[in-house]
Amino acid sequence: MKSWRLLRTVLALGFALAGLTSFGAAQAADPLPSWNDGETKQAIISFVEKTTKEGASDFVPPEQRIATFDNDGNLWAEKPIYFQLLYVIDKVKELAPQHPEWKQQEPFASILNGDPKKALEGGKPALMQLVAATHSGMTGEEFQQSVKKWLATARHPETSKPYTEMIYQPMLELLSYLRANGYKTFIVSGGGIDFLRAFAETTYGIPPEQVVGSSLKAKYEMRGDKPAIVKLPEVDLIDDKAGKPVGIYQNIGRRPIFASGNSDGDFEMLQWTTAGRGPRFGLLLHHTDAEREWSYDRKSHVGQLNKALDVASKEGWTVVDMKNDWKVIFPWGDRQGTPRQ
Amino acid sequence: MKSWRLLRTVLALGFALAGLTSFGAAQAADPLPSWNDGETKQAIISFVEKTTKEGASDFVPPEQRIATFDNDGNLWAEKPIYFQLLYVIDKVKELAPQHPEWKQQEPFASILNGDPKKALEGGKPALMQLVAATHSGMTGEEFQQSVKKWLATARHPETSKPYTEMIYQPMLELLSYLRANGYKTFIVSGGGIDFLRAFAETTYGIPPEQVVGSSLKAKYEMRGDKPAIVKLPEVDLIDDKAGKPVGIYQNIGRRPIFASGNSDGDFEMLQWTTAGRGPRFGLLLHHTDAEREWSYDRKSHVGQLNKALDVASKEGWTVVDMKNDWKVIFPWGDRQGTPRQ
Repeated sequence: MKSWRLLRTVLALGFALAGLTSFGAAQAADPLPSWNDGETKQAIISFVEKTTKEGASDFVPPEQRIATFDNDGNLWAEKPIYFQLLYVIDKVKELAPQHPEWKQQEPFASILNGDPKKALEGGKPALMQLVAATHSGMTGEEFQQSVKKWLATARHPETSKPYTEMIYQPMLELLSYLRANGYKTFIVSGGGIDFLRAFAETTYGIPPEQVVGSSLKAKYEMRGDKPAIVKLPEVDLIDDKAGKPVGIYQNIGRRPIFASGNSDGDFEMLQWTTAGRGPRFGLLLHHTDAEREWSYDRKSHVGQLNKALDVASKEGWTVVDMKNDWKVIFPWGDRQGTPRQ
Repeated sequence: MKSWRLLRTVLALGFALAGLTSFGAAQAADPLPSWNDGETKQAIISFVEKTTKEGASDFVPPEQRIATFDNDGNLWAEKPIYFQLLYVIDKVKELAPQHPEWKQQEPFASILNGDPKKALEGGKPALMQLVAATHSGMTGEEFQQSVKKWLATARHPETSKPYTEMIYQPMLELLSYLRANGYKTFIVSGGGIDFLRAFAETTYGIPPEQVVGSSLKAKYEMRGDKPAIVKLPEVDLIDDKAGKPVGIYQNIGRRPIFASGNSDGDFEMLQWTTAGRGPRFGLLLHHTDAEREWSYDRKSHVGQLNKALDVASKEGWTVVDMKNDWKVIFPWGDRQGTPRQ
């Protein structure tokens, strides 16, 4: 054995020992430290253990360990309104000088007058006008740059935190725990796919190819001597409600065995996931913590939870009671201003 | 240290040594044994080495190592015609007893009369009728089962091999080599996404979520008390030509740094890939081996190669001359009947 090989062997043995020590420590440590002990946490851990234990009757081969997560109100907060709408509002204001006609034209006029609620009274056509004005006519790369720039400076109106810090610490731990156990984690969101892809990798460790979202059609064209993919003002997929299993089917091509959501928009995703054969897990987050986060369900405009909550027990879905199940809300603390312990 | 821990340590050390030995062997061994030594093979290896060498100016972080491969005529053969069309023909024959009207109705009548060329004279509308009849009205899972069943028994008309063995040994090695170097390999094919997903994982080691292809729209619905995703007779994406970069953008969300194709249908994918900044690799397979495989390019109906071949040198794409660059064609030998050495 040449001396450099010997050196490599010694180094490798050192790493193996180091790895072994940290493995022992990880086994002993709590994989979900921000979850209170109780039925919910136990259900998650039992599921992960039984699906990953080789030889067990519920063992699932690694390539089938697909876990899908809704984003708004599930990985990050969705109050006062979807953060992507706040981006649209800021973008309309930014673009307004180039569009003097917007002052007299709805839904833009109401946005510029600080009344987004009125702007959205125009329903889907109004929303599509806003999306067309702020999300199309540019390349996907340009749009993502614009979102990244916005996320770097925009702040949540109440907590003054960047939106990318309005994320749930317990869900970050769940994502890591699943991945450490061979699960592939996906976002399946009603939000825009390019909007999500602008931050999902750095914020959640979820790469662009594992993001499924609502999308516009796109076109390949030459801009001078450079090819570009340009976003068109035409809907390709609304990845919400029954659109979620369709988005999963088209983009992932395999039924998840674990799905996590928080509203009726996630009903079909959870239904599709848990109707499959073999071990399946449906996780439904119930926002019950008015003090540390927000409390809402049946009468809420954003994040309405009726149907899914009604059938959760019958379907065997695990309901997370945020107030009781979560020790910590955000990585930095909670809405009351209490810093994280 | 408890005795079981000691045992584990000893085992780990053993594995580390074993791993080291095989690492040393892999380094020494040729990663592309079915490629003849020469410029093409050297270009591939140089690219992989420079993009994976930490600290090098051309180093690419693992998450950006996206490699896309066309399938027909690139990972598997496409002669006498696309294998998916052979599936359609067999399926029309299988379904014919339930459709007595097909005997008088084109394009079905010509298929049943053994004249698929005439059937396809009806152009895109005829093709869509065939696709609608054989690819829609069932769930994605049912369709994949049907494809798997067909692949298990159907044989290539000339070689009598299963279609899943009409795959190129050198390309299997290239896929493995890229993956061993942290590349994520994707199929980006004009073929149907569900057709591809039925065999891509077992045949190429490419999981469903890394398959991009032409697709039909789909609908989520209840069948009795079970939810199902049903394929609709309506095109969602034609993943060919300018549709390929669009499919990549929608499904992967990141521009590849390596793209491999063999026809003008791959022109835009190679163009989009290699127009990006930083190290990029375009690989164009030229079918030049009439004896061991097939020889065709400019005048071919299937796999036509004009535009892409004309600009390859200007664009810096590496052209594979099948006859000279490949030592072996199929895992079992070649079309002449010569078994693999």
